[in-house]
Amino acid sequence: MNDRLERYAELAVRIGANVAPGQILAVTALVEHAPFVRAVARAGYAAGARCVDVNYVDSHVRKAFIEGAPEELLEWSPPWKVTRQQYLGDERGAEVSISGDPEPNLLADVDGDRVGRAMPRELMELSGRMMLDEQLINWTSVSFPNAGWAETIFGEPDVERLWELLAFTVRLDEPDPVAAWREHLDRLTSRAAALNERRFDALHFHGGGTDLTIGLLSDASFEAARFHTSWDREHVPNMPTEEVYVAPDFRRTEGVVRSTRPLALLGQLVEGLELRFQGGKIVDVKADAGEEVVRAQTQRDEGASYLGEVALVDGTSRVGQTGVVFYNTLFDENASCHIAFGKAITRTVEGAGTQSTEEHRARGVNHSSVHTDFMIGNPEVAVDGVTRDGEAVPILRDDRWVL
Amino acid sequence: MNDRLERYAELAVRIGANVAPGQILAVTALVEHAPFVRAVARAGYAAGARCVDVNYVDSHVRKAFIEGAPEELLEWSPPWKVTRQQYLGDERGAEVSISGDPEPNLLADVDGDRVGRAMPRELMELSGRMMLDEQLINWTSVSFPNAGWAETIFGEPDVERLWELLAFTVRLDEPDPVAAWREHLDRLTSRAAALNERRFDALHFHGGGTDLTIGLLSDASFEAARFHTSWDREHVPNMPTEEVYVAPDFRRTEGVVRSTRPLALLGQLVEGLELRFQGGKIVDVKADAGEEVVRAQTQRDEGASYLGEVALVDGTSRVGQTGVVFYNTLFDENASCHIAFGKAITRTVEGAGTQSTEEHRARGVNHSSVHTDFMIGNPEVAVDGVTRDGEAVPILRDDRWVL
Repeated sequence: MNDRLERYAELAVRIGANVAPGQILAVTALVEHAPFVRAVARAGYAAGARCVDVNYVDSHVRKAFIEGAPEELLEWSPPWKVTRQQYLGDERGAEVSISGDPEPNLLADVDGDRVGRAMPRELMELSGRMMLDEQLINWTSVSFPNAGWAETIFGEPDVERLWELLAFTVRLDEPDPVAAWREHLDRLTSRAAALNERRFDALHFHGGGTDLTIGLLSDASFEAARFHTSWDREHVPNMPTEEVYVAPDFRRTEGVVRSTRPLALLGQLVEGLELRFQGGKIVDVKADAGEEVVRAQTQRDEGASYLGEVALVDGTSRVGQTGVVFYNTLFDENASCHIAFGKAITRTVEGAGTQSTEEHRARGVNHSSVHTDFMIGNPEVAVDGVTRDGEAVPILRDDRWVL
Repeated sequence: MNDRLERYAELAVRIGANVAPGQILAVTALVEHAPFVRAVARAGYAAGARCVDVNYVDSHVRKAFIEGAPEELLEWSPPWKVTRQQYLGDERGAEVSISGDPEPNLLADVDGDRVGRAMPRELMELSGRMMLDEQLINWTSVSFPNAGWAETIFGEPDVERLWELLAFTVRLDEPDPVAAWREHLDRLTSRAAALNERRFDALHFHGGGTDLTIGLLSDASFEAARFHTSWDREHVPNMPTEEVYVAPDFRRTEGVVRSTRPLALLGQLVEGLELRFQGGKIVDVKADAGEEVVRAQTQRDEGASYLGEVALVDGTSRVGQTGVVFYNTLFDENASCHIAFGKAITRTVEGAGTQSTEEHRARGVNHSSVHTDFMIGNPEVAVDGVTRDGEAVPILRDDRWVL
């Protein structure tokens, strides 16, 4: 057990964040993740980090904040958290974010509108800029199996079973996980290359209640898995990762999309989500549960109701093979095609990283303080690439890659 | 159980920190204290706090830091922690610090010299100045019973037994704890007044291997329990509290003192501590365990090897009545007379709060980035007040107040 934890922490530090000697390593985690955080700290120092700084978050304290804080503080960014983020960027630090919420529906009974609005705006914009635009830091997101999360998935706190699934999806079950990761990253990169050769004008998702067309930018390219910082440090932002993704033209999304997996969002489970787009914009939000949270989030700022990412994943991915719904976006988005409303992955757009918000908008690249992924793929949903001539080329059928 | 936790949190927030409506409330705690932190957050908002900000500390991460960080970072203060503390002072915030270490000897096998030096100097000086000199914030220290702490005391994780002791010492067992606290605080205040009437020139501790004379300042007064901020908000810094204390003349301590209880210090248990003073200064440090940590701490800066506090407590205190060694200074110092090397409690010295370090030193008031209490009283140790004429007046005999 301990050995597994140490190996997993090492994978997160050496392959995920790829911490360089002398770097500061920031860790963000829930208090329930303490055993893993400790292993990450040890692995960080072993990799040569000069300081590991942990920011523990407590969902119950956040709940008390959303219920009890005055209206004007809901979007407030504590100055010291801004200082910390700024310092991390200035120093070209590394970051490991840990997910795996033991109570993903803890805020079910809290006013959804407040839940959707309660996010530190300045801090989120700052960290979004650092991580996605300026690419100042090498970062990764990983998850830690815990009793509450296991209970959410299986109906019982079978942590061992969750560990086995996790080990499979992050290739800890391989004799040489590091080598297995390199091979896997190469495979995803080839898939992105195949898509880029076609230079599709749009993607069309259809079936199972979805009929959605997403316009693509002519100067954006699908990418996969590997990021590089502006100072050329490779890192893997998500573990697991199975997606190829791109920033779409935010002005050209049309139609209706249904989510295919529940979405754990800010402490509420969003189920049966259906969004309608017109001229790129979300004009209607419906859900069986969590509707208010999504609506409040999409109304936070101008860009929050437009898309910032579209990603293709097929059911043969390791996460898909498990057949499990994880109630954790890091996993569920890697079992299924997904889209995100909010901030664009600017690094997929030629030369966009250093451009201003206005320049982004002018060329169809979305800007927002949020970036919320949700799952839209399953065997019922076919995906076509649409050429500039209007021809539909099958990319996914029955949840399998056919391009 | 939950009801008890909520009542205890309310006591900490309403009597301890005495949070005012609209204040920001900072909480510092170990990750193991999460259940209590959550109750404190709820109690904070219920008392009208506009924001409860929690700083979770992880002893294992700190251990990895001390073992792995480069030498020059041991005393480093992360800029964002300085910003946080500064903000708290600027905003006249409140603070609840939670102790109760589940593993007070976790760093037993770490180089004691590094353990003793690894403290963020700028941050500690800043918070010391705010809490003790300028008195900008209303703060309190409380403890949370947990399995590890109970095991340290009893040899088994009997949390329920620890809760019962805690409830007794903090008067949660009273039908009206708030009224019981007011009465208790009045009693301690009278004891301080009785001492102040005598205007002793020195205190003399003798017996059980101790023979120590501590010179007092003519313009300092014993105080007890109640603090007031500079903007006149009453608060109770320690719960429990049973002591009357004063800042001594740091230049006039002479002799030898033996600690009478183990001291949990920075992750190591210090046992059998014996210090020798000459001209106020600690000139010799001996201990059966933890000697290096104490030595490193007393060598951090010029003031660290001089006294900043002497406090009188008798064995009839509620903590004393339990007959238990708590391995937690907040409790053990309230069962026994104690002294602290390092920073003086400047508020006990007339007009010292707003004076500079140089002015303090010139009048015999110590300054340092540390303030470490340790226990020196038990039935073998007699305490006398020494008058200006050299007459010895008994204050404590057989661990009972006799003045």
